[in-house]
Amino acid sequence: MSGAITLERILALQAAYIRCIDNNALESWPDFFHDSCLYVVTSAENHKNGFEGGIIYADTKGMLIDRIAALRQANVYEKQSYRHILGLPHILKNGGDTAESETPFLVVRVMHDGETSIFATGVYHDTTRAVGDDLKFSKRLVVCDSSRVDTLMALPL
Amino acid sequence: MSGAITLERILALQAAYIRCIDNNALESWPDFFHDSCLYVVTSAENHKNGFEGGIIYADTKGMLIDRIAALRQANVYEKQSYRHILGLPHILKNGGDTAESETPFLVVRVMHDGETSIFATGVYHDTTRAVGDDLKFSKRLVVCDSSRVDTLMALPL
Amino acid sequence: MSGAITLERILALQAAYIRCIDNNALESWPDFFHDSCLYVVTSAENHKNGFEGGIIYADTKGMLIDRIAALRQANVYEKQSYRHILGLPHILKNGGDTAESETPFLVVRVMHDGETSIFATGVYHDTTRAVGDDLKFSKRLVVCDSSRVDTLMALPL
Repeated sequence: MSGAITLERILALQAAYIRCIDNNALESWPDFFHDSCLYVVTSAENHKNGFEGGIIYADTKGMLIDRIAALRQANVYEKQSYRHILGLPHILKNGGDTAESETPFLVVRVMHDGETSIFATGVYHDTTRAVGDDLKFSKRLVVCDSSRVDTLMALPL
Repeated sequence: MSGAITLERILALQAAYIRCIDNNALESWPDFFHDSCLYVVTSAENHKNGFEGGIIYADTKGMLIDRIAALRQANVYEKQSYRHILGLPHILKNGGDTAESETPFLVVRVMHDGETSIFATGVYHDTTRAVGDDLKFSKRLVVCDSSRVDTLMALPL
Repeated sequence: MSGAITLERILALQAAYIRCIDNNALESWPDFFHDSCLYVVTSAENHKNGFEGGIIYADTKGMLIDRIAALRQANVYEKQSYRHILGLPHILKNGGDTAESETPFLVVRVMHDGETSIFATGVYHDTTRAVGDDLKFSKRLVVCDSSRVDTLMALPL
């Protein structure tokens, strides 16, 4: 799978990313990003209005590592799990070693007692860059449909 | 991507279609159809009973354009957004320049206050036809699982 | 599509499998499995704790056929339908004629009156084996996120 970025490689990256989160292997999550990267969680309304900030903002892989460490320490939440379901990616640009794509997502939260509800929906706006066989995110903008995004999120999106 | 229809081209078409709707770029929606086309929204029960009509019925691209114009004028709905999540397409027939496929869908509605609920589920029964690099729908039958389909839909499915 | 297992073949198998169930063509469902197979429905908690049993356990195709016969006889449920939405498969190993993959799923239940709710979420842990053009499951472990799995399930997962 070295060389040019293909739809198949993007599908594989997206599937591996959510598997990492839903398996609660959060310590491996930053490895999906290049050292210099942009990871932002924001709302559709903020995004439409051109606000560059977000509910969560990180522009190095180190900040993502710190975030996971903080989540692990602070996590006093009720036991729960998440299930990401991704729709089909739409590739906007593919320059061979860098591509831009958008992928819709739906996240379901399952509480310990089995109660199941929709936690978030939205679109990943991604820039991926391949270095040989390695395809990683240089930018992931998580645009949530709802403005009521939980700022104390117990997991990354 | 010219020549024969492939799974990859069908995936790309499906992803572009829902992106158009969920981005509220409805004026571009009719361009996903050939001039002579069939677009029907119906319920699983009607479909099973062989009724050819539907909640929404259009058999030219011009009718789809009219429908969007009407939606834009009539739209007095509460501010809301939709998120389509598509499952994996199942290709029933692929004759090279014409293909039949079925793709499951789930549509989530997000109200302005953030309330999120399942709006519709069902299957797209599609016939797609390629003219050179252009792959478009010659037929899209939207079969909703529930018989309670909102006839005043604020968006196409 | 003979020869080695590809992502495209796995996508096609997954799409055909849920189409069979959601079309209520349950008599064809066992044909997605090899004669010698393992089909288990269990919860994430049981799975994590290494319990090999499950809510449903079958280790031959004959047991799957029996299960459908029993479902058809016992089915006194309210009229309802299901809609499976699958996420993107993650391929863990691909040895050419045998592959291991994980695919997230979401199942929505639609009651006769139109009431729609999330019925189950989880991950399919699959081993697929190709015999010529035929790709089938030799193992499908259905790991449900919730521990409240309905043991009287009116359909297979």
